[in-house]
Amino acid sequence: MVELEQVRMHLNESAFEPSRLVAEYVAKYISKLNLYSIEELEREFTRKLSSYVGLPEEYVSTFPSSTEALNAAIRYIRSRGLRLVTVWPSFHGLLDQVRMEGVDIGFIQLTPENFELDLVKLAREGSPDKALYLPNPNNPTSNLLFNDKDTLEFLLRRFGLVIVDEAYYEFSGYTVADFVREVDNLIVVRTFSKAFSIAGARVGYAIASQELTQRLMENTPMFSIATPSLAAALGALEDIDYMKKVVEKTIKLRDDLRKEVLGLGLYAPVSKTNFLFIKTPIPGRYIAKQLAQRGIRVRGYDFEEIRNYVRVSVSRKENNLAFINALSDILKTL
Amino acid sequence: MVELEQVRMHLNESAFEPSRLVAEYVAKYISKLNLYSIEELEREFTRKLSSYVGLPEEYVSTFPSSTEALNAAIRYIRSRGLRLVTVWPSFHGLLDQVRMEGVDIGFIQLTPENFELDLVKLAREGSPDKALYLPNPNNPTSNLLFNDKDTLEFLLRRFGLVIVDEAYYEFSGYTVADFVREVDNLIVVRTFSKAFSIAGARVGYAIASQELTQRLMENTPMFSIATPSLAAALGALEDIDYMKKVVEKTIKLRDDLRKEVLGLGLYAPVSKTNFLFIKTPIPGRYIAKQLAQRGIRVRGYDFEEIRNYVRVSVSRKENNLAFINALSDILKTL
Repeated sequence: MVELEQVRMHLNESAFEPSRLVAEYVAKYISKLNLYSIEELEREFTRKLSSYVGLPEEYVSTFPSSTEALNAAIRYIRSRGLRLVTVWPSFHGLLDQVRMEGVDIGFIQLTPENFELDLVKLAREGSPDKALYLPNPNNPTSNLLFNDKDTLEFLLRRFGLVIVDEAYYEFSGYTVADFVREVDNLIVVRTFSKAFSIAGARVGYAIASQELTQRLMENTPMFSIATPSLAAALGALEDIDYMKKVVEKTIKLRDDLRKEVLGLGLYAPVSKTNFLFIKTPIPGRYIAKQLAQRGIRVRGYDFEEIRNYVRVSVSRKENNLAFINALSDILKTL
Repeated sequence: MVELEQVRMHLNESAFEPSRLVAEYVAKYISKLNLYSIEELEREFTRKLSSYVGLPEEYVSTFPSSTEALNAAIRYIRSRGLRLVTVWPSFHGLLDQVRMEGVDIGFIQLTPENFELDLVKLAREGSPDKALYLPNPNNPTSNLLFNDKDTLEFLLRRFGLVIVDEAYYEFSGYTVADFVREVDNLIVVRTFSKAFSIAGARVGYAIASQELTQRLMENTPMFSIATPSLAAALGALEDIDYMKKVVEKTIKLRDDLRKEVLGLGLYAPVSKTNFLFIKTPIPGRYIAKQLAQRGIRVRGYDFEEIRNYVRVSVSRKENNLAFINALSDILKTL
């Protein structure tokens, strides 16, 4: 049996290859792979990342994926005896980490239907012994949850710790990174997996006060980032122009795709990411299954609040078209 | 100021470059680094690793370093409510993991001076609600703690779970991997960092019953191994002959080095690893500091039981000679 080549629109991967500098930098250090780490590479990467983030090196820590940055944060939260809460619906991957780390988590619902911050609920639930996790833009809902200083300051006042996951920062253009200079209860988490097109390298980073940065680093193993991964990330950082082009092209493709989706009579919030969150007339899982049979992988959810949605990563033009055609066919059969 | 090129004899890295197939395989998959994982690569790696281990694929799970395999085991131990104990002295890295995961650990002392298993103590301390960690060969003491079926069966009867860390298996030639077919309370942990000369790729694996393998996989994030790392490990597995040559050369260099050490009037146990554990007339930390000033990095310890030892990785001939000369000089000043 010939395996169907699947169109990958289920993991929010970049639809574009990495910069050619990525291969170049990986090759450069490969003969030293017998060593746990290469100081020269680490120094250069740290310098470049700090410059990209726009903050001194002491505010930035690197992890083998933003998942592991979150993991370090969860371990820190546990060690401080804080209670972890998250806005909901949000990143389901957090729940896996929480289960593995054996900590409890609470949920603060976003407003129904439009998935915005419920400031009344947040004010009520906020407490100095709680750590709030909040992706901005949010995943899977694709919207920015806030883009103003007032909201951030409100959250920082109400919660003992605020973790803002900016995995899609390069697509939204909005960041709260600069605030880590002023406050010591903010952790910003970011990744090289989306705009930089190197998800397979598993590199993420955290931005926080110098003190918090130390705490996060204490909660992740030594030498945890593979040398080729760090070299790949350095290569990606050396070609910011390429990343910007990828982002620009992705945004154009995303907005075209959204028009097509609306044209089918379906609703999708304005996205500030590289994916769309599409409301479906029947459970998203069912739509996802039907699409998979047509060779297109998208993501549906069992969580009650988002049962009638699919999350669809922006792909190349031909894949997006194939998705729209398949979705249109499926809708006709309902 | 010119930085002194340090001789790395402190991390038990391989003194030899990886096989040339490593670079080849890494390059092969680099253009797909925008994807979280490459199924074809995963399938091929799993097939090859299973063949190397000599067990079906269902008994083997892969992790981004053996540290992360241990971490998955610690999480599993916590979820089952077991108490973790380790023979001592043994791998200090375990203590970092234990601290990060917020679990307690107990110590069962090896016999003083010769660092062997104390079967009386183990019998007394053994309990179905305890998980025992035991590196074999042991790190940092370099000796095999057991090489017979009877001892393993004794441990498996006495403890609820036994984790045997076989990081140096290729140097010792002794493994208990085959037992996972028969018992469901044994986890064997191994790494690509030593004999396979790709420490910088951070790839490790666990061997356990099918049921236990599932539990370990549930306790590590999805897509945790970077694509270049997995490709590097596949390249290394495709060149077993090269690995065997590295091991053979390292063993020869190690035994030569040990003769030199004994010639200086110092004691070092017979090593079954790629390092020596050398008894020093003054605290090892002090010797390590003196050596560092001469450009040679080795490992000393603050733990009481091994205060008067240094752990020295076998390096290339010229480095081993430099170490012996420097050590000889230092001893003369005492």
